[in-house]
Amino acid sequence: MLLPNINDPQQLKSLSVPELNSLAEEIRTFLIEKLTATGGHLGSNLGVVELTLALHYCYDSPRDKMIYDVGHQAYVHKILTGRQDRFDTLRKKDGLCGFVKRSESEHDVWEAGHSSTSLSAAMGMAMARDLKGEDNKVIAVIGDGALTGGMAFEALNHIGHERRKLMVILNDNEMSIAPNVGAMHNYLSKIRSDRHYLRAKDEVEGLLRRIPAIGGKLAKTAEKLKDSLKYMMVPGVLFEELGFTYLGPVDGHDIEKMIDTFHQADNVHGPVLVHVLTTKGKGYKPAETDFYKSHAISPYKIESGQSLKAVDKPPMYTEVFGEALIELGREDKRLIAVTPAMPGGSGLFPFAKEFPDRMIDVGIAEQHAATLCAALAMEGMKPVYAVYSTFMQRAYDQILHDICRHNANVMFAIDRAGFVGADGETHQGVYDIAFMRHIPNMVIMMPKDENELRHMMKTALEYNDGPIAYRYPRIDGTGVALDKEMHTIPIGSWERLRTGDDYAVLACGPMVQVAEEAAELLKREGIQVGVVNARFQKPLDNSMLLELANAGTSMIVMEEASEAGSLGSAVLEFFASQEIYDARVHLMGVPDIFIEHGSVKEQRQQTGLTVEALCARIKAMKALSKYTYKSTSTS
Amino acid sequence: MLLPNINDPQQLKSLSVPELNSLAEEIRTFLIEKLTATGGHLGSNLGVVELTLALHYCYDSPRDKMIYDVGHQAYVHKILTGRQDRFDTLRKKDGLCGFVKRSESEHDVWEAGHSSTSLSAAMGMAMARDLKGEDNKVIAVIGDGALTGGMAFEALNHIGHERRKLMVILNDNEMSIAPNVGAMHNYLSKIRSDRHYLRAKDEVEGLLRRIPAIGGKLAKTAEKLKDSLKYMMVPGVLFEELGFTYLGPVDGHDIEKMIDTFHQADNVHGPVLVHVLTTKGKGYKPAETDFYKSHAISPYKIESGQSLKAVDKPPMYTEVFGEALIELGREDKRLIAVTPAMPGGSGLFPFAKEFPDRMIDVGIAEQHAATLCAALAMEGMKPVYAVYSTFMQRAYDQILHDICRHNANVMFAIDRAGFVGADGETHQGVYDIAFMRHIPNMVIMMPKDENELRHMMKTALEYNDGPIAYRYPRIDGTGVALDKEMHTIPIGSWERLRTGDDYAVLACGPMVQVAEEAAELLKREGIQVGVVNARFQKPLDNSMLLELANAGTSMIVMEEASEAGSLGSAVLEFFASQEIYDARVHLMGVPDIFIEHGSVKEQRQQTGLTVEALCARIKAMKALSKYTYKSTSTS
Repeated sequence: MLLPNINDPQQLKSLSVPELNSLAEEIRTFLIEKLTATGGHLGSNLGVVELTLALHYCYDSPRDKMIYDVGHQAYVHKILTGRQDRFDTLRKKDGLCGFVKRSESEHDVWEAGHSSTSLSAAMGMAMARDLKGEDNKVIAVIGDGALTGGMAFEALNHIGHERRKLMVILNDNEMSIAPNVGAMHNYLSKIRSDRHYLRAKDEVEGLLRRIPAIGGKLAKTAEKLKDSLKYMMVPGVLFEELGFTYLGPVDGHDIEKMIDTFHQADNVHGPVLVHVLTTKGKGYKPAETDFYKSHAISPYKIESGQSLKAVDKPPMYTEVFGEALIELGREDKRLIAVTPAMPGGSGLFPFAKEFPDRMIDVGIAEQHAATLCAALAMEGMKPVYAVYSTFMQRAYDQILHDICRHNANVMFAIDRAGFVGADGETHQGVYDIAFMRHIPNMVIMMPKDENELRHMMKTALEYNDGPIAYRYPRIDGTGVALDKEMHTIPIGSWERLRTGDDYAVLACGPMVQVAEEAAELLKREGIQVGVVNARFQKPLDNSMLLELANAGTSMIVMEEASEAGSLGSAVLEFFASQEIYDARVHLMGVPDIFIEHGSVKEQRQQTGLTVEALCARIKAMKALSKYTYKSTSTS
Repeated sequence: MLLPNINDPQQLKSLSVPELNSLAEEIRTFLIEKLTATGGHLGSNLGVVELTLALHYCYDSPRDKMIYDVGHQAYVHKILTGRQDRFDTLRKKDGLCGFVKRSESEHDVWEAGHSSTSLSAAMGMAMARDLKGEDNKVIAVIGDGALTGGMAFEALNHIGHERRKLMVILNDNEMSIAPNVGAMHNYLSKIRSDRHYLRAKDEVEGLLRRIPAIGGKLAKTAEKLKDSLKYMMVPGVLFEELGFTYLGPVDGHDIEKMIDTFHQADNVHGPVLVHVLTTKGKGYKPAETDFYKSHAISPYKIESGQSLKAVDKPPMYTEVFGEALIELGREDKRLIAVTPAMPGGSGLFPFAKEFPDRMIDVGIAEQHAATLCAALAMEGMKPVYAVYSTFMQRAYDQILHDICRHNANVMFAIDRAGFVGADGETHQGVYDIAFMRHIPNMVIMMPKDENELRHMMKTALEYNDGPIAYRYPRIDGTGVALDKEMHTIPIGSWERLRTGDDYAVLACGPMVQVAEEAAELLKREGIQVGVVNARFQKPLDNSMLLELANAGTSMIVMEEASEAGSLGSAVLEFFASQEIYDARVHLMGVPDIFIEHGSVKEQRQQTGLTVEALCARIKAMKALSKYTYKSTSTS
């Protein structure tokens, strides 16, 4: 066993290629065994075992900067840089992060979670290096899926122009989270499949010599053609046209070949793109054969790869969304689903199966997806932009400039709103209310349970006055019975679930249940607390707010969203606009820090979004109330 | 004269090519004469006169959809679609919009203002067409500069994959607002300059026939090579690789050739890219020779193209920024300026001249620019991301995920914050506080005058605890004297400019001056109003807020920013967090609607951000105060 003794990548340099291959197998076994308990991004990491070994063999981390796009494929890098013994804590609170994390190791130089940032990062590091007069290497490892993200192209365009020395490893495993779509994917497939490219290099030289010498008018053209021919033999002409030297494709499971190619790359002046072919899930049958299961998995049975998740649980919101969308799709032929590379995660497979023509996967392209939706809506379609809250951030400008400014009838199905658990700080869905609420024409909803989600979907479909969003969490539903018929909900209407005396909790989403539980507990202590399902975050239910203020009710706005700028902020603004200066409003939201990985429960505890914290807050308000002015209505 | 009688594009169809050419000259004269009085995007419109004529000659607007990227090059389209008589009102309040505007005409099918959206729009319209079983054409006109925006690539990738029928006109005028940068630009230059491509097509066929027949092992390779050769003769191989049929390049001032090419394009199955070469400012010497002047101009002298803008005015904030940046650049070698294609508009030319190595223009690539800054900062540089508030929206995710989450020392120089005047609703800089304030680690400042801007720039440079932004308006400075030495300002400190009795205006940026003037007027009426320069929008000056609340002062927060989620909202949240429920805070900000074009003054009048409105507000508060509870401190 070599692995147990590896705690610094420098140790790799004394190993032979056969030893590196043995180590690769040990790492594979290690990953499969560890992740069976913790879950995590198994497939992508099994795919880059040899690649990561070859990189650490050839280069000197951390002097040479290794930048992993998205950063969920850095488990092997973590194993090789002294973090083997922490894998039992992977993605757990205070444990090893599932992504690259600078606070864990000096070998982690760039954190991500969202895709397509690595090329910009590499360019920045290469520029800083040159300005400082240093000579370290800068290496970005980017998947073929991430390459479709617009910002990756912006970076390619800049890198190819400036021609600084840096290396891009295109880790081509033929898929992002879903199988890749797009012209770039087709292009890469052509390179991969066209054996001609791989065989022909030598033959071409001979052939070129057989073109007869041509004189006169055609001489220069002939010369040019010979150049063009040689050029065409480079399979990555697209990258060459953008200013890169293209090397490859090279087998990403052949360590020796990769080492050779990296040495070749080192001798190139300017930017190099090395095209490496890998197999996602390599060496573990269940992961090799089920693309989706192998991406980000829960703990699983090692033999079959089957998830250990309990059965008999209520359906996730995502699943309820997926099913309801089919019902609505049958009802309204104009309904179209648009996803940026998340057909599985967004629960869209059943819809895609029934309505293949009305399911659009644009690849990792959140901006394009948003503007596409605007145009579809303006031509009379009813597009649903299905997206995770965190990835929606990429489309902020397009939502504002193309959808809301056009007041286009686009529906947003915002999944993973609120805390996301193990994916941690890069994936928290706690900003979308704050970044959408100030955009004119936007309507924002969040259901208290999965049944209300269905009604909100119906509401959105029937709404014809502009953009409308429904956001729902990445958790199981409450298990409530689902109404057979979906019905609409009046825009801006809240729901009073429980009346109280002096206090009311205005909650949205899963916080409604938290509020109900707290109210029940407090009732036993004789404190009557009202609960309002503040299901619209924009517009607000102004008349209910006025009623509460007029009754002198103290309000606690509770939301799993940034306390700055979200629902609570909107409530305060409303009272200020009404010149109601004595309404007592307390905010309970996500504080102004990034919330790291852990379980959703732990993240709620950390931020005080729990039944206990709410009870304590109300009791404190009650204790203080006798010392402060008891409000009376001003209106 | 043909032009005066043209009020519908259908009329073009009966004209001959010579008549169309005459019409082109008439339109050119019309544009130069009209814009001398109104200002506007002269250069880009002079460049597309023949192109627009050829499009309207060949296609049937509005049945066929013509989508103009950015939309500032649609003046000719407006002239041809019945809006000639409104050009005296161009970019004026209630006048003709400087961009495509659906409310003006059925021929305007897609509005923009930000670049690179047209391809996504075209794809959406083509999809909707196919789903509805219709057969209209969809045509996107996009500049070579806009093509570098990431979302344009996302769209190319999708279009090339799906292969629906649509036409992309690449309007290649060799520059966006600044001369283009980037590998795509180099690539297009190569096509343009390589006369070989233009001459060789015929010769190639002959040459291919002269390659001897080759048997045996090499036969297949030879065949493949012939294919490759033919393929190489298409200059737009990059676009072909992405799934487009490439046609061109074609002279964009030759109407007849363009008509031929469009007919050719109509017969192609799937997406076509027609590469059209145009000259920005064509036919007007001052515009042809000065790239920057010709972009978005003020009213000018017709002979020289010189601006009619008064001299003797105070410098614009932009200019003060540009000068101060040089001083700081001399002081600190780590300082680097990064701009997404706005070196001129952002006042960076003097800096670029003195520090060419520390000036980075990435082209239209706001996302890449942000992440590049994060990496530069993480490697010890001091990047200043110089960007317009409205274009910064494109980088929201990168600011959050790459800059703030890494807590990287990136400075943001946010120009055009607040109202922008004639550019109107697509360019208003009123959202940046609201979209940045909820992001952890962010510091946001706005100076009350150009002298304070200098101190804020120094403050930002000395600040080493993470990202920090200073935002300033698109107007002349106040004319205040500039301190020779720049000094730092304590983070989060506000400035009490004037003390009052019961009222205090918390203002930022140009609103400070408005507040001062109002206070002066009210003083004459015996009402003492305090004025606070709330120069940090994050963090707030908590101790000053507590002082004001304790003194029972009624506060008016006044800002040229979205009332939802900006400074006023932050003040309300602060008091809520302190359980100070009786602080009287009134908000005056930009309401929840899109504010159209007009002068900045008119936009302030429309939104009530004026001296008069503030005076009226305070008097109303005073009138009501005797009926309401006078607050006493609770702390």
